[in-house]
Amino acid sequence: MSPTGSLSLDNPALKTPAFARLPSWTKEKLSPLAIKKIQDVYDWVEQECIPREQIMKAQLEGPGNRWKTPSLMHELREKAKDRGLFNLFLPNHFVESPGLTNLEYSCCAEIMGRVYWAAQTMNCHAPETGNIELLAKYCSEEQKKKWLQPLLDGTAASAYSMTEPDVASSDATQIGIRMRREGDEYVIDGRKLYGNCLWNKELGFYILMGCSAPDNEDRWKRHTMIIVPCATPGITQVRNLTIMGYDHAPEGHGEYVYENVRVPAENVILGEGRAFEIAQGRLGPGRIHHCMRLVGQCERAYELALIRCRDPAKKPRGRFIGEFDSNIERIAQMRLELDQARLVVLNAADVMDTLGNKAGKRAIAQSKILVPRMATRIIDECMQLYGGQGLTQHTPLPEMWTYARFVRVADGPDAAHRHQVGREEMKTAEGFRQRHAEYLRRYRELAERYGEKVVSFDYGNLE
Amino acid sequence: MSPTGSLSLDNPALKTPAFARLPSWTKEKLSPLAIKKIQDVYDWVEQECIPREQIMKAQLEGPGNRWKTPSLMHELREKAKDRGLFNLFLPNHFVESPGLTNLEYSCCAEIMGRVYWAAQTMNCHAPETGNIELLAKYCSEEQKKKWLQPLLDGTAASAYSMTEPDVASSDATQIGIRMRREGDEYVIDGRKLYGNCLWNKELGFYILMGCSAPDNEDRWKRHTMIIVPCATPGITQVRNLTIMGYDHAPEGHGEYVYENVRVPAENVILGEGRAFEIAQGRLGPGRIHHCMRLVGQCERAYELALIRCRDPAKKPRGRFIGEFDSNIERIAQMRLELDQARLVVLNAADVMDTLGNKAGKRAIAQSKILVPRMATRIIDECMQLYGGQGLTQHTPLPEMWTYARFVRVADGPDAAHRHQVGREEMKTAEGFRQRHAEYLRRYRELAERYGEKVVSFDYGNLE
Amino acid sequence: MSPTGSLSLDNPALKTPAFARLPSWTKEKLSPLAIKKIQDVYDWVEQECIPREQIMKAQLEGPGNRWKTPSLMHELREKAKDRGLFNLFLPNHFVESPGLTNLEYSCCAEIMGRVYWAAQTMNCHAPETGNIELLAKYCSEEQKKKWLQPLLDGTAASAYSMTEPDVASSDATQIGIRMRREGDEYVIDGRKLYGNCLWNKELGFYILMGCSAPDNEDRWKRHTMIIVPCATPGITQVRNLTIMGYDHAPEGHGEYVYENVRVPAENVILGEGRAFEIAQGRLGPGRIHHCMRLVGQCERAYELALIRCRDPAKKPRGRFIGEFDSNIERIAQMRLELDQARLVVLNAADVMDTLGNKAGKRAIAQSKILVPRMATRIIDECMQLYGGQGLTQHTPLPEMWTYARFVRVADGPDAAHRHQVGREEMKTAEGFRQRHAEYLRRYRELAERYGEKVVSFDYGNLE
Amino acid sequence: MSPTGSLSLDNPALKTPAFARLPSWTKEKLSPLAIKKIQDVYDWVEQECIPREQIMKAQLEGPGNRWKTPSLMHELREKAKDRGLFNLFLPNHFVESPGLTNLEYSCCAEIMGRVYWAAQTMNCHAPETGNIELLAKYCSEEQKKKWLQPLLDGTAASAYSMTEPDVASSDATQIGIRMRREGDEYVIDGRKLYGNCLWNKELGFYILMGCSAPDNEDRWKRHTMIIVPCATPGITQVRNLTIMGYDHAPEGHGEYVYENVRVPAENVILGEGRAFEIAQGRLGPGRIHHCMRLVGQCERAYELALIRCRDPAKKPRGRFIGEFDSNIERIAQMRLELDQARLVVLNAADVMDTLGNKAGKRAIAQSKILVPRMATRIIDECMQLYGGQGLTQHTPLPEMWTYARFVRVADGPDAAHRHQVGREEMKTAEGFRQRHAEYLRRYRELAERYGEKVVSFDYGNLE
Repeated sequence: MSPTGSLSLDNPALKTPAFARLPSWTKEKLSPLAIKKIQDVYDWVEQECIPREQIMKAQLEGPGNRWKTPSLMHELREKAKDRGLFNLFLPNHFVESPGLTNLEYSCCAEIMGRVYWAAQTMNCHAPETGNIELLAKYCSEEQKKKWLQPLLDGTAASAYSMTEPDVASSDATQIGIRMRREGDEYVIDGRKLYGNCLWNKELGFYILMGCSAPDNEDRWKRHTMIIVPCATPGITQVRNLTIMGYDHAPEGHGEYVYENVRVPAENVILGEGRAFEIAQGRLGPGRIHHCMRLVGQCERAYELALIRCRDPAKKPRGRFIGEFDSNIERIAQMRLELDQARLVVLNAADVMDTLGNKAGKRAIAQSKILVPRMATRIIDECMQLYGGQGLTQHTPLPEMWTYARFVRVADGPDAAHRHQVGREEMKTAEGFRQRHAEYLRRYRELAERYGEKVVSFDYGNLE
Repeated sequence: MSPTGSLSLDNPALKTPAFARLPSWTKEKLSPLAIKKIQDVYDWVEQECIPREQIMKAQLEGPGNRWKTPSLMHELREKAKDRGLFNLFLPNHFVESPGLTNLEYSCCAEIMGRVYWAAQTMNCHAPETGNIELLAKYCSEEQKKKWLQPLLDGTAASAYSMTEPDVASSDATQIGIRMRREGDEYVIDGRKLYGNCLWNKELGFYILMGCSAPDNEDRWKRHTMIIVPCATPGITQVRNLTIMGYDHAPEGHGEYVYENVRVPAENVILGEGRAFEIAQGRLGPGRIHHCMRLVGQCERAYELALIRCRDPAKKPRGRFIGEFDSNIERIAQMRLELDQARLVVLNAADVMDTLGNKAGKRAIAQSKILVPRMATRIIDECMQLYGGQGLTQHTPLPEMWTYARFVRVADGPDAAHRHQVGREEMKTAEGFRQRHAEYLRRYRELAERYGEKVVSFDYGNLE
Repeated sequence: MSPTGSLSLDNPALKTPAFARLPSWTKEKLSPLAIKKIQDVYDWVEQECIPREQIMKAQLEGPGNRWKTPSLMHELREKAKDRGLFNLFLPNHFVESPGLTNLEYSCCAEIMGRVYWAAQTMNCHAPETGNIELLAKYCSEEQKKKWLQPLLDGTAASAYSMTEPDVASSDATQIGIRMRREGDEYVIDGRKLYGNCLWNKELGFYILMGCSAPDNEDRWKRHTMIIVPCATPGITQVRNLTIMGYDHAPEGHGEYVYENVRVPAENVILGEGRAFEIAQGRLGPGRIHHCMRLVGQCERAYELALIRCRDPAKKPRGRFIGEFDSNIERIAQMRLELDQARLVVLNAADVMDTLGNKAGKRAIAQSKILVPRMATRIIDECMQLYGGQGLTQHTPLPEMWTYARFVRVADGPDAAHRHQVGREEMKTAEGFRQRHAEYLRRYRELAERYGEKVVSFDYGNLE
Repeated sequence: MSPTGSLSLDNPALKTPAFARLPSWTKEKLSPLAIKKIQDVYDWVEQECIPREQIMKAQLEGPGNRWKTPSLMHELREKAKDRGLFNLFLPNHFVESPGLTNLEYSCCAEIMGRVYWAAQTMNCHAPETGNIELLAKYCSEEQKKKWLQPLLDGTAASAYSMTEPDVASSDATQIGIRMRREGDEYVIDGRKLYGNCLWNKELGFYILMGCSAPDNEDRWKRHTMIIVPCATPGITQVRNLTIMGYDHAPEGHGEYVYENVRVPAENVILGEGRAFEIAQGRLGPGRIHHCMRLVGQCERAYELALIRCRDPAKKPRGRFIGEFDSNIERIAQMRLELDQARLVVLNAADVMDTLGNKAGKRAIAQSKILVPRMATRIIDECMQLYGGQGLTQHTPLPEMWTYARFVRVADGPDAAHRHQVGREEMKTAEGFRQRHAEYLRRYRELAERYGEKVVSFDYGNLE
């Protein structure tokens, strides 16, 4: 039995490598279902995904295949579905959920992060996760049948389309693409950025946010969300956007022109003018999935760094790189920051589980701000340990770094999140001013009682 | 009920400010006793300690009193003892324990950290905490009665004496002060650094580590721990050591010469040559008490910063300091780092509770390395928000910074802890090398099956 | 001859340790007079000041002497004056100048920085330097004779009094202390912070900035500078302000109340309402003297760190601290940052010499922002290399760190300087926008010529 | 006239934008020739290169052209040669030099850095610069005619081949590729990494370092440098190495197998076994060209950031991004770090000019360590100001970041340079120990004279 008699920690199922990095408090909260799923995800990634990394790459780089989902992906998705590994991300309060809490899924997500595309084999990849949650939350039953079910089944693919080239993305009220109602249809005109590439013919539809009532006095009611099938005439993809030079095929990031694009009005989600209600709801767990996968990705980078540290072919002045004490300190620092990042993300998941997404806002922002920076720093350090080779395709490190860097701006740059947190904190200042005024009042009382002169000390005008 | 039906979180006793910063998972683990104690500690610190800060200072700075424990401290200690707030730090597996786990006590310790000397009012201050744990663990019943009980009762004070001026402190095997057995006595000669000041006449004894068998082949058996009463003739205090200019009276940090100091052999703890067994055991929870108090201290510094941010007397160019968005970002960054530090320390406490002190080694080192640096950074930022005033006695910030800086070297500088963690990690490299060799083997197999050419990729010689 | 035939670098007088750290371009600019003075300052500090550090300390800590300038200081000042080392800081365009440029004096100032009080022995200490320059620039001949000459002779001491407790110091227009003209006098009422301590009876006068016309529409004309003799009745010093716990005796930092303080109107400098003209002028070279002394102070801290690195008494696991490669990296990093800091300050001095103080504004801000941070970081690292001892009075490092930290807020916190630089830079954006619009125009032209399609690329709306 | 009467600074030719960022001391050292060349380079880059950036890209990305030098490059090289802008990097002590000092060329290199490929149009690109200097220094007249002259004329291209996949690159004595003498030939067998791609048919030859005498007792005499024409049979390029995903076509970075490659013995440079003599000599100015170009590149990134700061299409909450004071601070910080980086590199160039390459070793290392890190940090910050767009091909920032990251490992990772500097510094410790022992000795003498007790202070055992 563990020191304080925590029976759950004595469960032999928790003694495998799949659970080795988890904090005690997390292990204690895992349901039997979660313990099984985490182990299954671990086996899947270790045995089926990692050894296929070069094969996936080869299929993607083969002639003429760049924007086509590789057959290997289809094969793996079917297998993963059969093994019951699909849609694990959907939290247990949805009827469609396989039954995990956010905390439990986070443990899975870390493992998925070990391979760039592993989440996709389990239908747990962005933007699908956010979209599925959105549709499950806000669609009518009819819409669900038509658009949500195929996503859950893994037979369709969707994208999310919000950002625009000509406005400040951090202020969504500026979204300008025009949606005009004409009879039973909405007519869409304007430009969009990001959202997966049209060039991949397997993409089914966009969830698009547009401006349907530019003159509404309430600027939070000017926008509408609508499902736009990719096949609708009038959408042109100008080009694919690269991220630090990577095209991220076969999904990619598009740049689009919408000209007279006509979509049935029944595709509107929740109702005209209600886009912000939906957008708010989309900001929950999806935001930390990225972070948790980054933790897993960093663990992999870290393992490579350790391998380099003991590479018998790389011994400058006759010593393993890992025998230099500067590198011993570097490894330790990485280890500690990684463990810390995990604590931060698991806590955010747990707050969402126990207090709800809204109460979790700060913990989510904390993950978003701290984890991507930590991840770029750690991976950069790993690359540096590899010297010149660390930057080449000899290791997966450059792709890892780029992904972490991307997450630092996805869903808003970190400064935006800091502003949000900081503004909330400033509101608490008044309470502290009052509390300190009370200390001061009581001090004066006590000083008299003890016969001490009142000393003025001045850390702020408290009146 | 909370979203996932955690009954414990719905407990109204947990809704007070005393629990506001604690993560959900911690709250869920608190026993009813702990909930009561945390609240009591909170009330004690907020109502009895903070308003007396200037009075304590005045008593200490009064003429002729510098090295005497102020009467206010005695008064408060008695009161705190009456309220059942004594010795809370002693973990619940000791018979002498008031019954809290390390995790539960950590919640108390954070609150104590809000006032520099609050822990002392509750007999939870260093080095007493470490000494009490040591004596409780290793003393005979007779010794316990004589030396431990008065410490628990708060009627005596002790110090720990290990460091020496002439050797490398990070290598305890070099400790050189000589202990020679002569009949029923040990005769001690040499020099020591730190350990509280002799000048405070209330100090009762040192627990001293000396070299009793310099020629023993096993260097881990050369040293002995012994209790040295302060009144023993032959101990001279050369001077008090200041820390960044602060004398830390009335306890201080001494510098001593031992000349022909004779101590009864019955004062030896555990047995001659067994000092390292004891020293190992002393490295547990005490190491994170400092850290947790630092978290509380930083929360207080943070509150002062917020007060400054809304000080109506300080409005450069007509705006509150807290209206500048650079300061909004700073406040957010502090908030996040503080929450992160708390997670790290609480997790270390929980690991000790659930897996034992030994398994908690890395989590403890993590606290030790990360928290003091974070604390100096945060307090420094708070001082900077106050401009010139931030460095003066107008605020308690300079003393806070100094304490945090001191903790960065107390119990060993952070580089030493990093080395320890890093060396352990390096040992895991071989396992990862093997795992990657296995990935490679399986990749080759699969490549053949999929008809793909095997691409060489080279992140290390895995043979 | 040096590689490019720089005759000056071959001068054997430049081959001594006094010049060893100076960049070539600086050496080449030194006049024969400067070369002599730098060497003299070096000899003075190395032979007369450093060996007396403990004696100065002892005199200051002796009973009853705390706020009295030690006799040793008087003795050394006389000697230094005899050796022609007085007032070297005053740039060569003043008639009172001993003839050095700002660049040349900077080389002296670095050396002075090696001992906390060495500048004072040479009458080159703050605030005297700033005050002397101010008086030399703005006083009438009569005023000069009365107030400036004794400062130059070293027979009087002055202070500068600007900051106030109740307003935002970074916005000088808020200075509120009232100056009312009554007949031939000004009557002063209000509070001030900083400026040297009245308790030292050798202090002669304050240069005080007060508000003489609060209702003037032009807020830059509301304030006046006036010389206030310390002996004037009505000035009370409430207490001395400590800096990180240090009292900085025997000069200190005062906190004052002015009540009905009457000063002759002839003590006004330049004229009523012209304080901002003067304040502007005071912001020149004095701002970088601190920085250059910090460089010298850091060099000394660095030397101590090197000494520790090869201390035969401190060899954990049998190796010198300096044999651990993590410390080798630390030392290198310090070395590089120090050399960099020197380049930055010397360049600022040179810009003032060649283009004037106003054109040097950015270079001065650069020193102010970068050097104190670098200095606290380097000294902190040095303390850490010493372990626990690094924080005690065993080394001068804690005092050094505190001084560097103080400089980070003296003359305004670094954020204020960054804002000033940043606002200036933002004004240049328009020019770059136009330049890039021009690139774009020409690109379109060329694309046609080369028969290439114009690709849109979008790093900003340039219209 | 400038304040101190520096005539040269009054030269109207120095008032153009081409010189605006240069420090005074640098401007004063520029010869009339240099002033002309700097202006010409500036005009060339601004008017001929920048507007052609997208055209160069288009030519490279056109079908089938990836590994072919674009015709635009040939056109521009001819023009630049006609304008007298070729080979400016070759310092003025070579007979082949166009006559600039290292300092003067650095001013040109910064400007070249504004466009990734601008240096190549002026035959000032790596590895050509290092190779030309090497050949000019070590070749016989005959060799020069055959190999050097075409490089100087810009009619041939060369590469440098040192790194190997199977050994630690930071320890060149491990280079293992075998060179066996057979009659008038050397036979080469082994593997190499980096050095430009064979796939570009315009590449003429490699300067290869191989192991010709593995058993020589002096490990500094085991290696030989030899010129290997690309057309020699037996060299296979396994693949191109990407850098953070970029292929760096049309030059690239190769990975090669050498099998029975036969090269005439007359191609050996300097003599068998003398490779290390040459390698040492290659480490001079070339190392800072990269750094200086990075400074120019960062200036361009900075201009883009400023443009974004005032982009009228990007105004979150109605304010320019550049009106948020957090961004004002960011811009200021970038500005200061950039100016600092320039000072560091210009000083290194000047030290080489005035004291020689060897004496410049530390200043060169300083550039190498500080500038690439600063550059990645600054460019990263610029990308972040652009939000999501900052990572896409909408701006050149991702390519800039990647180049700066690459320079951090090119010519050895920064840790290697730090070790070198740190080891040299450690050697100076003994001198400081002696100097401090002398202070101590003199202190004791003086203490007696002043009648003060000698206080022990202990920053190290100085005996």
